[in-house]
Amino acid sequence: MRIDDPEVLREVEEALDRYERALMANDLAALDALFWNAPQTRRFGATENLYGFESIAVFRRARPNGAPQRVVLRRSITTFGHDAASADIEFQPIGSERIGRQTQCWIRTDEGWRIASAHVSLMV
Amino acid sequence: MRIDDPEVLREVEEALDRYERALMANDLAALDALFWNAPQTRRFGATENLYGFESIAVFRRARPNGAPQRVVLRRSITTFGHDAASADIEFQPIGSERIGRQTQCWIRTDEGWRIASAHVSLMV
Repeated sequence: MRIDDPEVLREVEEALDRYERALMANDLAALDALFWNAPQTRRFGATENLYGFESIAVFRRARPNGAPQRVVLRRSITTFGHDAASADIEFQPIGSERIGRQTQCWIRTDEGWRIASAHVSLMV
Repeated sequence: MRIDDPEVLREVEEALDRYERALMANDLAALDALFWNAPQTRRFGATENLYGFESIAVFRRARPNGAPQRVVLRRSITTFGHDAASADIEFQPIGSERIGRQTQCWIRTDEGWRIASAHVSLMV
């Protein structure tokens, strides 16, 4: 299995960029489009554990201001073969001293790269 | 890409079982053996962000009692093709009311299934 193929890496980097822009803008359509539309999709947030694409979409709509604004401090992406990748970031919420972490598992679907699993937390 | 191929799923389920036993026993050799031996391996814990297989191995050795004992409440595994999977659990530390979450990205290496990225946190 080829690790970090440059072309695959570039694709996932672009997907991550797109995700961060969508999150900061609370662009619900763009956020939905970046999650795998499947019942197996999961997202663990700071205060919630969500199972299935629909639950995640509903959660976003119950959060009118979207995610807290944040600065990405460090980003690490590793690609596995042609169709899978893990992407982890450390971030700092604006106005906070705390460090947040976001872990995502990305997969290539027929529609493009999508998040299949996500976990966001603040470090203790 | 085949999702949740039964044979692949079975393999990853066994790897997860092995990991949980090793974690509860603080079996350092077994835990090391289940992490991808690569500088790209990452693990975000409740109180630490670790980069690279070596950092994770060193961290374990500085924690003589190992991880807190816990009960797995829910386990969700999705496999992507032949060589990649995401595995998420919810758990409860023994003696605590809190809910923990563990997200792992697994990959098939020449030596077998290994964790390439992990994130553990307690829900707020």
